[in-house]
Amino acid sequence: MKTLLVIGIGAGNPDYITMQAVKALNRADVFFLMDKGQSKDKLIDFRREICERYITDHAYRFVEAHSPERERGDVDYKASVDDLNLAKQQTFERLINEEMSDGQCGGFLVWGDPALYDSTVRILQAILASGRCEFEFEVIPGITSVQALAAQHKVPLNRIGRSIEITTGRRLAAGQVSDADSLVVMLDAEDSYHQVADQETEIYWGAYLGTPDEILISGKLKDVADEIERVRKAARLANGWIMDTYLLRKP
Amino acid sequence: MKTLLVIGIGAGNPDYITMQAVKALNRADVFFLMDKGQSKDKLIDFRREICERYITDHAYRFVEAHSPERERGDVDYKASVDDLNLAKQQTFERLINEEMSDGQCGGFLVWGDPALYDSTVRILQAILASGRCEFEFEVIPGITSVQALAAQHKVPLNRIGRSIEITTGRRLAAGQVSDADSLVVMLDAEDSYHQVADQETEIYWGAYLGTPDEILISGKLKDVADEIERVRKAARLANGWIMDTYLLRKP
Ligand SMILES: C[S@@+](CC[C@H](N)C(=O)[O-])C[C@H]1O[C@@H](n2cnc3c(N)ncnc32)[C@H](O)[C@@H]1O
Ligand SMILES: C[S@@+](CC[C@H](N)C(=O)[O-])C[C@H]1O[C@@H](n2cnc3c(N)ncnc32)[C@H](O)[C@@H]1O
Repeated sequence: MKTLLVIGIGAGNPDYITMQAVKALNRADVFFLMDKGQSKDKLIDFRREICERYITDHAYRFVEAHSPERERGDVDYKASVDDLNLAKQQTFERLINEEMSDGQCGGFLVWGDPALYDSTVRILQAILASGRCEFEFEVIPGITSVQALAAQHKVPLNRIGRSIEITTGRRLAAGQVSDADSLVVMLDAEDSYHQVADQETEIYWGAYLGTPDEILISGKLKDVADEIERVRKAARLANGWIMDTYLLRKP
Repeated sequence: MKTLLVIGIGAGNPDYITMQAVKALNRADVFFLMDKGQSKDKLIDFRREICERYITDHAYRFVEAHSPERERGDVDYKASVDDLNLAKQQTFERLINEEMSDGQCGGFLVWGDPALYDSTVRILQAILASGRCEFEFEVIPGITSVQALAAQHKVPLNRIGRSIEITTGRRLAAGQVSDADSLVVMLDAEDSYHQVADQETEIYWGAYLGTPDEILISGKLKDVADEIERVRKAARLANGWIMDTYLLRKP
């Protein structure tokens, strides 16, 4: 039997790694690196650094796989993600078949937590369901960017006894969010916080959380929305890419 | 200046601890233990064990504080939590004033992540805002029970591109949840999953997650709701207390 470990490595600070993840890192014979896009090199370096720092006395190797990119622009979001996941599924099957021998252990190093806006778990479940490949797999949670955001701003995510909604910039812009008084927005490429009507809403915004480039801005939307847009644009230009997330809290 | 560290220790498995938390543990001179209720002894033992395991070459002590209990039963939830937090605030102020000298570092060991349904951060912010006590504080994220749940069931929390709502059993029972297709329910003392109308909804339920007593049940509500209620009741009886949480996913 082959074993796959889906290891959450935290969302930015190498110290976010858990003991459980360190133990898992030390079990893997091969790590599959799947990043894509403009942040690719930095994120792959981060993973190599994590392995170097935490793996002791154990031989391991990396296999970089070409990870297909999602079609951008004016296409159906769910359909383009589905297509992407099908292509990824084929890539994963090839890696498991060609790069692992029986009894070996393969690791996927997932940014943040594997349960949050990441397709690795879904793809492995789909492969297992297809019956085309046999393996066991384990999931190791990691600190998400949402938790990094709250910790760095020193705020709770929820109001007392109330709900939290975690959503995407796309859904916020499309008006598809509920009226939760705590709304966390991820994957926002379009400054969708400008769409929020109530300008008394407080925003806790963070970019490159947990890294040396971290930027934090908070305040009422009417006071800080333009500043966030400006800072965000400048940071993306300077670094070539940006990762940011924010909490919106009703007044 | 005094420094307070609000340290997320993960929600059950001692291996959920992060490197950042281990470093923080090693900075604290005194740990404040505040648990209450029937799970008190177990949860306090867990914290002592964490300290024993991860603190090296550093003297530290524990101070157990009587933590007031929330008034139960037919009272306004928010008001009773507010009262409780006021009492806790006084307790915290006393601890900071009497149990720490200048330059010292105090630690709060928070179950799971401090940002999720925990009052420590809110109370410290309230004390700072009151101006009655001066200190610096840092928040260290920890693996939440929500992440433990998803990892142990090997499922993503979100559907592709969709939202996640995290809420309480109380709100679910009161019909105060949105129609999010992924709903995570915490703090449910009343088997509120029975209130969900659509019996095709999938539930991923977990109790004592990450601990040796862990129990996992999943399936469609129509197939497993009664089993969960039965197993939950028996486990609570056997252990004297229960911690459980679940993900509801629309068909
Ligand atoms: C595909 S999702 C992956 C989320 C990841 N699994 C997690 O647990 O945080 C990527 C989104 O996460 C957020 N994100 C991830 N890392 C971040 C960081 N260090 N700082 C700010 N936002 C981050 C951004 O909103 C980004 O668009
Ligand atoms: C006051 S909240 C604290 C949550 C915690 N801060 C966290 O990050 O998970 C307590 C609730 O968390 C959930 N919980 C905490 N630990 C758990 C565990 N090990 N297994 C199942 N549920 C747990 C239960 O729903 C419980 O009612």
